[in-house]
Amino acid sequence: MNLDSLYSELTIPTKAKLALIVLDGLGDLAIVGQGEITPLEAARTPNLDAFVAQGCAQGRMIPVAQGITPGSGPGHLALFGYDPIEYQVGRGVIEALGLGVQLKAGDVAARANFCSLDPKGIIIDRRAGRISTDVCEELCGILSRGIKRAGPKGSEVEVIIQPGKEHRFVVVFRGEGLAGPLSSTDPNREGQPIAIAKPENEKSVAQVKTAKIVADFYKRALPLLAKHPRANGFLMRGIAHQPRIPLFQDRYQLKAACLAVYPMYKGLAQLVGMTKIEGPKTIAEQFERYLAEYDNYDFFFIHYKYTDKAGEDGNFEAKKKAIEDFDAALPILLRKKPDVIAITGDHSTPCAVKGHSWHPQPVLVHSALSGSDKLERFTETGSNMGSLGVFKAKYLIRLMQANARMFDKFGA
Amino acid sequence: MNLDSLYSELTIPTKAKLALIVLDGLGDLAIVGQGEITPLEAARTPNLDAFVAQGCAQGRMIPVAQGITPGSGPGHLALFGYDPIEYQVGRGVIEALGLGVQLKAGDVAARANFCSLDPKGIIIDRRAGRISTDVCEELCGILSRGIKRAGPKGSEVEVIIQPGKEHRFVVVFRGEGLAGPLSSTDPNREGQPIAIAKPENEKSVAQVKTAKIVADFYKRALPLLAKHPRANGFLMRGIAHQPRIPLFQDRYQLKAACLAVYPMYKGLAQLVGMTKIEGPKTIAEQFERYLAEYDNYDFFFIHYKYTDKAGEDGNFEAKKKAIEDFDAALPILLRKKPDVIAITGDHSTPCAVKGHSWHPQPVLVHSALSGSDKLERFTETGSNMGSLGVFKAKYLIRLMQANARMFDKFGA
Repeated sequence: MNLDSLYSELTIPTKAKLALIVLDGLGDLAIVGQGEITPLEAARTPNLDAFVAQGCAQGRMIPVAQGITPGSGPGHLALFGYDPIEYQVGRGVIEALGLGVQLKAGDVAARANFCSLDPKGIIIDRRAGRISTDVCEELCGILSRGIKRAGPKGSEVEVIIQPGKEHRFVVVFRGEGLAGPLSSTDPNREGQPIAIAKPENEKSVAQVKTAKIVADFYKRALPLLAKHPRANGFLMRGIAHQPRIPLFQDRYQLKAACLAVYPMYKGLAQLVGMTKIEGPKTIAEQFERYLAEYDNYDFFFIHYKYTDKAGEDGNFEAKKKAIEDFDAALPILLRKKPDVIAITGDHSTPCAVKGHSWHPQPVLVHSALSGSDKLERFTETGSNMGSLGVFKAKYLIRLMQANARMFDKFGA
Repeated sequence: MNLDSLYSELTIPTKAKLALIVLDGLGDLAIVGQGEITPLEAARTPNLDAFVAQGCAQGRMIPVAQGITPGSGPGHLALFGYDPIEYQVGRGVIEALGLGVQLKAGDVAARANFCSLDPKGIIIDRRAGRISTDVCEELCGILSRGIKRAGPKGSEVEVIIQPGKEHRFVVVFRGEGLAGPLSSTDPNREGQPIAIAKPENEKSVAQVKTAKIVADFYKRALPLLAKHPRANGFLMRGIAHQPRIPLFQDRYQLKAACLAVYPMYKGLAQLVGMTKIEGPKTIAEQFERYLAEYDNYDFFFIHYKYTDKAGEDGNFEAKKKAIEDFDAALPILLRKKPDVIAITGDHSTPCAVKGHSWHPQPVLVHSALSGSDKLERFTETGSNMGSLGVFKAKYLIRLMQANARMFDKFGA
């Protein structure tokens, strides 16, 4: 029997409130010669410490599998309880979500970037000299105004173009019967023409149809760029449709809200059907909004970005400060303490790595029945000794449900 | 999607040097009433302690599955990153490797032992009165000289016979189109005739062919032994071919060398395609040779036998001494510190068990990005508090690759 089916079968809806608080990239490394301490360990966190003293279970989570460094997509899908290897989200979809495009199930999205072509259509610069974001926005405007729909006559679909940073943008195709993945149009080196996007599976009617639409999109778009001195072409990668993911509410019997500031995380939450709550710009505002929405949802996904940002910059002090800022806001959430609280990261972003990493992130679960691991604080080193051990992140939500008493006994 | 495929897809070759140091049977038990301390905990290990202080991640590894005690074959295959249940190596193959027979892919190997038959061919002693190793060598010499090839006319194959300890020896059949497994010829009790080796799968042409060759081998061999008063027959078990295992280099993008003293471990390394480096007889010499070969390989498997030997003898002091001897040699390795070092066992061989056991072995991983678990030493009790948790041994190499920054990010 499939484990997810077992969980579903045992699920009993309750009136419990659950909050998943994600400090993006929280996990870090204690490096010998650099204080041998992590930002979480170095931070002054009186509120978090007091909360830990109320009793919690701690542990560490492997985002995907041993040694695998996840992007934000797989990191969050795992936190939402979906196996990130089973449910893979294309790069185009993630990029579109990151740029705030509201995707619908079945949409095909692609990462795109401008390139330079010689008069014979040969790529002479795959990044169009890294044109400025302004120029990119201007060119995307030209494409958007010139192309509303693409595809062979009678099967045209809607086209959405959204500019990104520098030479980057995304293209979304919206209509019936589309599917990816298609191969990239980027030959990965200069001196070649733009490649043709081909269906990964030639027997897929939807992929074949989508390939024709992409080809037609190129036919319409290239003439609109022809006069630009550098950005007279473009390449498309990660052409894939938004996967059909079982809805969060159906899977967990929890009505979920997303309180995130950055578009990517709102997008990922929407992918699984969470309601996106707009407005809050700071963690304090996110917690205030949680209080206001308390009665309207069962599950709150609250995303805090700045730990990851600081880690990406390798800025230990900034990461420590981000944690302290979070700590300062925490009492707002606790004014109406959720029945089950999990605090963790979607992965580690160690300052020493200056990027995401594979190191298991610390996790804390508090409820009336979490018990106490008798740890004084929430830290990487402390969580190694917690009762939750080291486990795969996709199981966190199941632990949260159990703490909410949402599972009936299995067997007699 | 298969996890191994994902790892392969994400693999980026680097110039990192990785060293896997296996203290065979390292793990042990703290027994109340016997000092409640393990040999690793009791040993004076100033060099290892100083190395730990440079920062490492620790944990414990389950060699195969909860409660399973592995032989050296599964223990090492797991360390080499192969699921030991998926990739099973026949006992005949392991025995042949242990006796130093250089196997080729497709060879069929069997464990054999002399037995005593009555005039009607009924087994009266399954171990031939445990004849001495000298007698075994003499009889194997008679068989070797008398039988170079076996099999029905036109499909004869090469036969290699290698004596072992007491009544034991191995037989290897080498030729085209052979395969195991075949059933044992040992009826497992006296009073029965020698059984016929039968194909496990009767539809396998190769197994059927191999069964005929084994039958013909018996026809040629028994007359040569007829005059011996006790060892006038023999039984064959674990008749299987060397499995086709994906090559280490293809799987991990690492050119690997084996620095082992005992034939079994050289053989296991060769099974996965590592280069066997001959010569060193002590751990100091193995480390010296590592220094000399530093530029020639990416991955070094360095095997140390004496911890296991002492454990098998139940000799706590000898095991402790073996660890101290290892510690004394460690600085040689560290003269050119590998980028990633893992120190562990292939399983536990607790003195109290006097044999292999299922207890998770401690493991330590050190790299610039391993982080520090802030443990003062490398011990069983300490490793329980490490950031790696308790995990399956087959993932160790993936963690080592991650520490070598050999994996691209998964997803965006």
